[in-house]
Amino acid sequence: MLFFTQCFGAVLDLIHLRFQHYKAKRVFSAAGQLVCVVNPTHSLKYAPTRCAAAQTSTEQGILPPCHHHETVHNPQLVPCTCPLFSCPWEGHLEVVVSHLRQTHRINILQGAEIVFLATDMHLPAPTDWIIMHSCLGHQFLLVLRKQEKYEGHPQFFATMMLIGTPTQADNFTYRLELNRNQRRLKWEATPRSVLECVDSVISDGDCLVLNTSLAQLFSDNGSLAIGIAITTSKVHSAEAEM
Amino acid sequence: MLFFTQCFGAVLDLIHLRFQHYKAKRVFSAAGQLVCVVNPTHSLKYAPTRCAAAQTSTEQGILPPCHHHETVHNPQLVPCTCPLFSCPWEGHLEVVVSHLRQTHRINILQGAEIVFLATDMHLPAPTDWIIMHSCLGHQFLLVLRKQEKYEGHPQFFATMMLIGTPTQADNFTYRLELNRNQRRLKWEATPRSVLECVDSVISDGDCLVLNTSLAQLFSDNGSLAIGIAITTSKVHSAEAEM
Repeated sequence: MLFFTQCFGAVLDLIHLRFQHYKAKRVFSAAGQLVCVVNPTHSLKYAPTRCAAAQTSTEQGILPPCHHHETVHNPQLVPCTCPLFSCPWEGHLEVVVSHLRQTHRINILQGAEIVFLATDMHLPAPTDWIIMHSCLGHQFLLVLRKQEKYEGHPQFFATMMLIGTPTQADNFTYRLELNRNQRRLKWEATPRSVLECVDSVISDGDCLVLNTSLAQLFSDNGSLAIGIAITTSKVHSAEAEM
Repeated sequence: MLFFTQCFGAVLDLIHLRFQHYKAKRVFSAAGQLVCVVNPTHSLKYAPTRCAAAQTSTEQGILPPCHHHETVHNPQLVPCTCPLFSCPWEGHLEVVVSHLRQTHRINILQGAEIVFLATDMHLPAPTDWIIMHSCLGHQFLLVLRKQEKYEGHPQFFATMMLIGTPTQADNFTYRLELNRNQRRLKWEATPRSVLECVDSVISDGDCLVLNTSLAQLFSDNGSLAIGIAITTSKVHSAEAEM
């Protein structure tokens, strides 16, 4: 009897795993908008500096996903911009997207307006939800992070970074929108370049910030839907014309 | 010589006080929108219950601004809704506005769209910025509060409450908008009724919440401009028609 119970448990676990996998890959269109289900990833990168983080993960027996280079010789090379891992990869800005896709398995989506559906918001901090967004001829990195800036009080931080230079980033405006239960919260800003570290954007608080209570108000069954839109910055265009 | 220095100091203090008074009353129109400069008030009401707060303020020798009634006999009477003081006043909902104006000196402004300019954002918590807003035939209470929900980490909470019943409040939508330095943050919600305590709305986090860093990003020279708009709720109207 115990054997059958255990077998049944194992089958249930397999079904659950299969469902989770399906959920992670699910991308569907609802009301003309592309909805992308994004599963959380427990962040392994929590140390003051990149080098320190790489060292910690090595000490703990967690191998960083790329090989480790101690020094940077070529100033044209940029470090890996993945917010999840302390990755010592370096390369030209043009190949950052393919590095993030291939090495860190970050999905990329097309479309001017998408819905980012972050699942399992209850998971403990530090946790990241990450996706790339291809739009207007450029690629953007969307990061939602659950972090305890103040111990015991997790907050959610959402930002969009251009995989490009700060000058290129100035040409765009991104909008993040939460809308549920007769409440709406909108954040609009110029994206920052991935050359500025996402960690510093979040520690500066220059992004959409949600307390746990607000996140719960906007969540539906443990998932948070964030509407994303990117436009070319009108202010900047007007300035350029002058 | 000392006498003249002291006299000069006293004159300077008087000029400063006069200027503060002038600032508090200043209301001007900029680009078609009514801008109202709102000075901060150090909140005297910080205790879990109204009675406890009244007791504490009396114990500390701070007299509450109204007389103290121990019991409520008439269920049609509502308590004072002033977020600043533990006021034991009771009266009919219709006379709450005149009580807030006359006893608590809360200003009232007319207009569908106004700009609430909160000064001296650097002042320590607990601090409140309060105004009443008359619009669409109703009066609303706008509260911006600086509060340390977590010790050592002050946050700003902004909400709008209808001076009316919860059923009346369901007919409206209010919008609070911050806009500065290529960043925009909008919060839209159904106002809560003043019969639900403003303290509970803030402790639930069901309002616009700003970290100190975000508040600084949107502030200009220590003042925070919040654009306010009130509309009749379309969702509710559509539901009523069905």
